[in-house]
Amino acid sequence: MNHRPIITFSSDFGTREYYASAVKGAILTVHPAANIIDVTHDIASHDLLEAAFTISCTAPYYPAGSIHLIVVDPGVGSPRRALIASTEKQLFVAPDNGVLSLVYDRLGVERVVSVEASHYFREPVSPTFHGRDIFGPVAGWLARGIQIDKFGPEISDYIRLALPPVEKKEDRLQGFVLHIDKFGNIVTSLSPSDLQSAFGPERHPTAMVINGYSATQKADFYAQASEGDLFFLLGSAGYFEISAFKQSAARRIEARRGMKVELLVG
Amino acid sequence: MNHRPIITFSSDFGTREYYASAVKGAILTVHPAANIIDVTHDIASHDLLEAAFTISCTAPYYPAGSIHLIVVDPGVGSPRRALIASTEKQLFVAPDNGVLSLVYDRLGVERVVSVEASHYFREPVSPTFHGRDIFGPVAGWLARGIQIDKFGPEISDYIRLALPPVEKKEDRLQGFVLHIDKFGNIVTSLSPSDLQSAFGPERHPTAMVINGYSATQKADFYAQASEGDLFFLLGSAGYFEISAFKQSAARRIEARRGMKVELLVG
Amino acid sequence: MNHRPIITFSSDFGTREYYASAVKGAILTVHPAANIIDVTHDIASHDLLEAAFTISCTAPYYPAGSIHLIVVDPGVGSPRRALIASTEKQLFVAPDNGVLSLVYDRLGVERVVSVEASHYFREPVSPTFHGRDIFGPVAGWLARGIQIDKFGPEISDYIRLALPPVEKKEDRLQGFVLHIDKFGNIVTSLSPSDLQSAFGPERHPTAMVINGYSATQKADFYAQASEGDLFFLLGSAGYFEISAFKQSAARRIEARRGMKVELLVG
Repeated sequence: MNHRPIITFSSDFGTREYYASAVKGAILTVHPAANIIDVTHDIASHDLLEAAFTISCTAPYYPAGSIHLIVVDPGVGSPRRALIASTEKQLFVAPDNGVLSLVYDRLGVERVVSVEASHYFREPVSPTFHGRDIFGPVAGWLARGIQIDKFGPEISDYIRLALPPVEKKEDRLQGFVLHIDKFGNIVTSLSPSDLQSAFGPERHPTAMVINGYSATQKADFYAQASEGDLFFLLGSAGYFEISAFKQSAARRIEARRGMKVELLVG
Repeated sequence: MNHRPIITFSSDFGTREYYASAVKGAILTVHPAANIIDVTHDIASHDLLEAAFTISCTAPYYPAGSIHLIVVDPGVGSPRRALIASTEKQLFVAPDNGVLSLVYDRLGVERVVSVEASHYFREPVSPTFHGRDIFGPVAGWLARGIQIDKFGPEISDYIRLALPPVEKKEDRLQGFVLHIDKFGNIVTSLSPSDLQSAFGPERHPTAMVINGYSATQKADFYAQASEGDLFFLLGSAGYFEISAFKQSAARRIEARRGMKVELLVG
Repeated sequence: MNHRPIITFSSDFGTREYYASAVKGAILTVHPAANIIDVTHDIASHDLLEAAFTISCTAPYYPAGSIHLIVVDPGVGSPRRALIASTEKQLFVAPDNGVLSLVYDRLGVERVVSVEASHYFREPVSPTFHGRDIFGPVAGWLARGIQIDKFGPEISDYIRLALPPVEKKEDRLQGFVLHIDKFGNIVTSLSPSDLQSAFGPERHPTAMVINGYSATQKADFYAQASEGDLFFLLGSAGYFEISAFKQSAARRIEARRGMKVELLVG
């Protein structure tokens, strides 16, 4: 057992408020040696999909035993449940509002527990700040080695975000814009495994189409293209992306999250 | 004694500059095992009230023995003093400019020392960066267990911000907007203990009035209200707040910090 | 050897994306006890000079043995090299794109190694995310004590940014605006040692001129001036700065990075 268990922390609290810090204090009060790693506190307020994308892209790079705390919680105080989800080697603590959807879909969740054992909470529990009074302390107790079945019953009816499915249409695959990053890269919901499932291992992507624009150049990395060229590539998150070297592809073609995207297959 | 003493760090240095990092380096040079926790570096430049609010709301959730470093210091280099303040179980290091006002008022400060023992400073001391050369190293030495009376004489004439008092007016309590958070929640200076002091334990809040708007609905948590409804609640910082579910209450009613607020009592 | 070696981390990944966190996970996977300290992730996208300025100003305040990871990498995936640079007591890990220029110039680099030993990389290496798959893991292995000559051959043809030189002109020294900070302070490329090299130890600065404005008042610290006065001082980064107390000097005189600056000598 690592003496300094890692707890990553993602939220929409912003970096200017005291909220994220109060949660860290609550964790450290339970487990003073916890190694709290900030993922981001700049998730857009109440944006469950952005949080789902972020945690599913970062968790796989952490060592076994890491605990991931995600507090994006517009329903705080309402009867929505608090959850612990376990994959083979990691744990996730979050509200039951779909924020773990891409963890369920992509990271192989084994069990999900509804957190009900209130003796692991900070008292009194503020109805407006479960991050500090419930989620943070629960992550702290997990870091101290409490087994997840001590926190409540296993459940299977946890909430998933309703995301547009990947659809096969003749010689193309249709998805949507999952994320636009700070460099203006357009991350789509389409992955090589989607391509292979739909068309088999012999077919290759030839172009991506979005908002009336086509990216017909495929690159391996950003600097391969000329400045400003539109191209597509397999991004580091495991999805196909549309990019423009040293430019914001998203601004250039007015892409927005949720927009329909097509991958043409040759 | 914790082998990794916690030092929280709040400043107005921003997250883009090298300043906060240089302070962290100065702390770690004194005590390499210190566990530095970022509270925020996004306090508005020179905003003493915002810093005072932030640290007073977050410190109570940290374990005993924590050291809180606050560097918002428009008077750096001038003869304003450097302070260490102690509560029953925690320490605070900050300039003597009022930034600890709400710590003094709300957290039960026991002693305040004027830091004069320059052998605990980093040499040479830059007249423009006491965070790196004085406050950070002092926090590091405190983390190493140096007692606060080694740093200088106890004082009682430390500076407090001049904040509008809570005033009782017939069947209402008047305060002001203490903080507006990133979700647009309007945190007021009025607390349940103010209410009880003024009206006794039998009376209850019925509405809050600000800038010509009334919030007559009382909620326990944000999601209890319908989207966009204006309501008031007891916030997690221990103050009454005016909110609008999934909307910025502050933007909707054009609230600004410092505005007069009234709590109506039934 | 410190059991929790310090790895500072600077990047242009932003605080909203999962990128910085994935790098931290990759480091912790190699060395779970590494003490990762965020310098900043808000370097302007692809801004090598800003990154060079930031790391050269913060590294000197960290203890011996610290490892500094800098990931500002517009050329990711191209054949640009990955580097480890050593000063007397610290190590730097970065792409070979000039981002270490001010480390080379100001901090006394002893050796620079081209990182080629791919068994220290995370597999598979994404061509778009060397921060996660190369630079982060390399920093982790350095923290575990692997000597830098194990990573590849020493080189001397590493890239430096082409920065305007300091020029002596009669009774003045000409430099440029190196950085504008969040308070609006204008940090120039001119230092006291430049002054002494050009004019000897007897001469003193009397004014600074930029964009048609003169700052003729010299201050020791910000609060010494009246609010709004323009003045110059020796800043904490070791460069002459032009400032205005409680105002943005940069906004007031429309200063921009790279602008010509003159220091008049009396």
